[in-house]
Amino acid sequence: MKILITAFEPFGGEKVNPALEAMKLLPDKIGNFQILKLELPTIFYKSIEKVWQYIDEYKPDAVISLGQAGGRACISIERVAINVDDASIADNDGNLPIDQPIFEDGENAYFSNLPIKNMVEAIKKAGIPARISNTAGTYVCNHVMYGVLYKLHKENLNIKAGFIHVPFMPEQVVDKPEKPSMSLENIVKAIEVACNVLA
Amino acid sequence: MKILITAFEPFGGEKVNPALEAMKLLPDKIGNFQILKLELPTIFYKSIEKVWQYIDEYKPDAVISLGQAGGRACISIERVAINVDDASIADNDGNLPIDQPIFEDGENAYFSNLPIKNMVEAIKKAGIPARISNTAGTYVCNHVMYGVLYKLHKENLNIKAGFIHVPFMPEQVVDKPEKPSMSLENIVKAIEVACNVLA
Amino acid sequence: MKILITAFEPFGGEKVNPALEAMKLLPDKIGNFQILKLELPTIFYKSIEKVWQYIDEYKPDAVISLGQAGGRACISIERVAINVDDASIADNDGNLPIDQPIFEDGENAYFSNLPIKNMVEAIKKAGIPARISNTAGTYVCNHVMYGVLYKLHKENLNIKAGFIHVPFMPEQVVDKPEKPSMSLENIVKAIEVACNVLA
Amino acid sequence: MKILITAFEPFGGEKVNPALEAMKLLPDKIGNFQILKLELPTIFYKSIEKVWQYIDEYKPDAVISLGQAGGRACISIERVAINVDDASIADNDGNLPIDQPIFEDGENAYFSNLPIKNMVEAIKKAGIPARISNTAGTYVCNHVMYGVLYKLHKENLNIKAGFIHVPFMPEQVVDKPEKPSMSLENIVKAIEVACNVLA
Repeated sequence: MKILITAFEPFGGEKVNPALEAMKLLPDKIGNFQILKLELPTIFYKSIEKVWQYIDEYKPDAVISLGQAGGRACISIERVAINVDDASIADNDGNLPIDQPIFEDGENAYFSNLPIKNMVEAIKKAGIPARISNTAGTYVCNHVMYGVLYKLHKENLNIKAGFIHVPFMPEQVVDKPEKPSMSLENIVKAIEVACNVLA
Repeated sequence: MKILITAFEPFGGEKVNPALEAMKLLPDKIGNFQILKLELPTIFYKSIEKVWQYIDEYKPDAVISLGQAGGRACISIERVAINVDDASIADNDGNLPIDQPIFEDGENAYFSNLPIKNMVEAIKKAGIPARISNTAGTYVCNHVMYGVLYKLHKENLNIKAGFIHVPFMPEQVVDKPEKPSMSLENIVKAIEVACNVLA
Repeated sequence: MKILITAFEPFGGEKVNPALEAMKLLPDKIGNFQILKLELPTIFYKSIEKVWQYIDEYKPDAVISLGQAGGRACISIERVAINVDDASIADNDGNLPIDQPIFEDGENAYFSNLPIKNMVEAIKKAGIPARISNTAGTYVCNHVMYGVLYKLHKENLNIKAGFIHVPFMPEQVVDKPEKPSMSLENIVKAIEVACNVLA
Repeated sequence: MKILITAFEPFGGEKVNPALEAMKLLPDKIGNFQILKLELPTIFYKSIEKVWQYIDEYKPDAVISLGQAGGRACISIERVAINVDDASIADNDGNLPIDQPIFEDGENAYFSNLPIKNMVEAIKKAGIPARISNTAGTYVCNHVMYGVLYKLHKENLNIKAGFIHVPFMPEQVVDKPEKPSMSLENIVKAIEVACNVLA
């Protein structure tokens, strides 16, 4: 059994991406799952293409994409991805789509088919704050979550997929003392716990 | 050279106090400093009496009191303690003072004589968010900070003293997903860094 | 030309609902639009049935539903309603649906077809903070927004429809000093401005 | 009986100052009090000199200084002013004092002698959120509050004095949708209510 974890390059002026740093620290095995790791460009469509190719080649049983949600205080397990790109800052290739559907022939939204409530409960039980989030935004995070779920539905693939947003790491907010953060250790632990729920 | 660290018992319905948990994890030596640890009751005056006795007996070179500031996102190095007790919840002995001076013959306020700006910079340099706070509140935290500084001024003691407020630990906010928290590891590290600044 | 405005009864222990109070204060005419007003029970499905009957009977050109988003600081024009009821508190009839689809034969989500970006800009130009929101939650607000848009799509009705969330009124937060609020006058004004954008 | 109200010019890049706008809208009489109004430069010391001259000339019975506390959600009645200037941005004359005492021969702090608790209760009773604040910061607001109270103590004047911080107005936060604000009408009303408490 294989879980593909994806994470983005840094974006928005940040030098690091806590989701990417967390992915790097994940072990290669969690329970009985083999953990595959894929870094994605923070670029509309190129990110989706890259994860699609990887899914075709490695046929994971689950895909958990990770992203940074700066300003949130806890781990957010996303419930739903919506069919819209609406960027307030350019992606890492200069694209700034406004109110564009991601795929013209896609559903308005796709729900994550991960056990999101069980994941939240398990993470909280591990002492780490977590909640369901009902919006993954309209930037590259939502875009990739949508893109993966679109593929699963179009191709009728038996894969679990969804998205987890993580807070800033402490070092990102040393000059923003009102912004919440979470230690990288706890971010990593939360993702491990979430993976274990799939077992 | 000796640094006395104090921390309170849990209060306000919380089962743990992150400041107390952090104090327990501090090493017995930080740099050349011997670290003395003292748990204080979250009780008006009894807390002050206990720390005064300890100061008289052990004659530390510095006193750093620790407290929980639930809802704050970063380490707060307090600048000033004011001569007022004004509780919104009872202390652990049922006292609920309203607008009472702590000591009738005390100054309106005492400033911390710790190197507070250097402490903030050192903690931030260690990757942990920190800031100066201009209020330690009007509860038992401010009370103890005031009580120690009052003694130093009255007795003209050559002791550095002040207060550090720490955020909730993650396990305290698992059901309060919008509240910021900080890992115990980082709280401990921040206090160690602050102690090192005294060297 | 007719705009139907809906608002909910108070819920969640609140004695008033700022959206309802605002609706009561709206004039009967805004520009060339006749304003119809409909109070809805804060009850799953009963709310939808009531607004559906009203639409059938009065055939409005637009339906703008209003709701309270306690804790938000600005007017939120909702982008999308999702096909799920997931309540954290019971509705006013004791229903507490968990992860239930609203309509089995509905789309996963429906996008508002109001000119949401223009509404945000017009409200901001009037000096009132506003933004697009990407989640109307999973309670009765999202439920009604979804229910109206579902009907429009199923029956191919040429009606503009969407949802506006409004902050607490100041009197609701006198004992919650950290919660943002907005004056009823500004809430009313924002809704009037939003209606005018439809002209 | 005369109440002197003071307010600052805009500062920190803002085009307006809600406290100043509110002062302009105050009536010339509140109850039996004559209301005197004084605009102060947002400049260290020049602000204090101006209010001192005014006090000497007009001999008010009370001085209520107003200031903007951007980011706070409610009216804050300040409890205490501390003897320190510590600016994070330059004042309107380019001064950027760091950790300087305001008056070398002043107390560490002065408490407001306004009926601050009664003011909070009266404002809340009027439906407007308010609270006691234990810090007026370390910028020009605290500076003026300290300067007035210093004079009263040094000269043993029988004058009530203190400081009220007000939130941003809505028009200041149209592009900061997460920042709380308060309508100018409610700010004015809160100040009138506070003045009435002095009667």
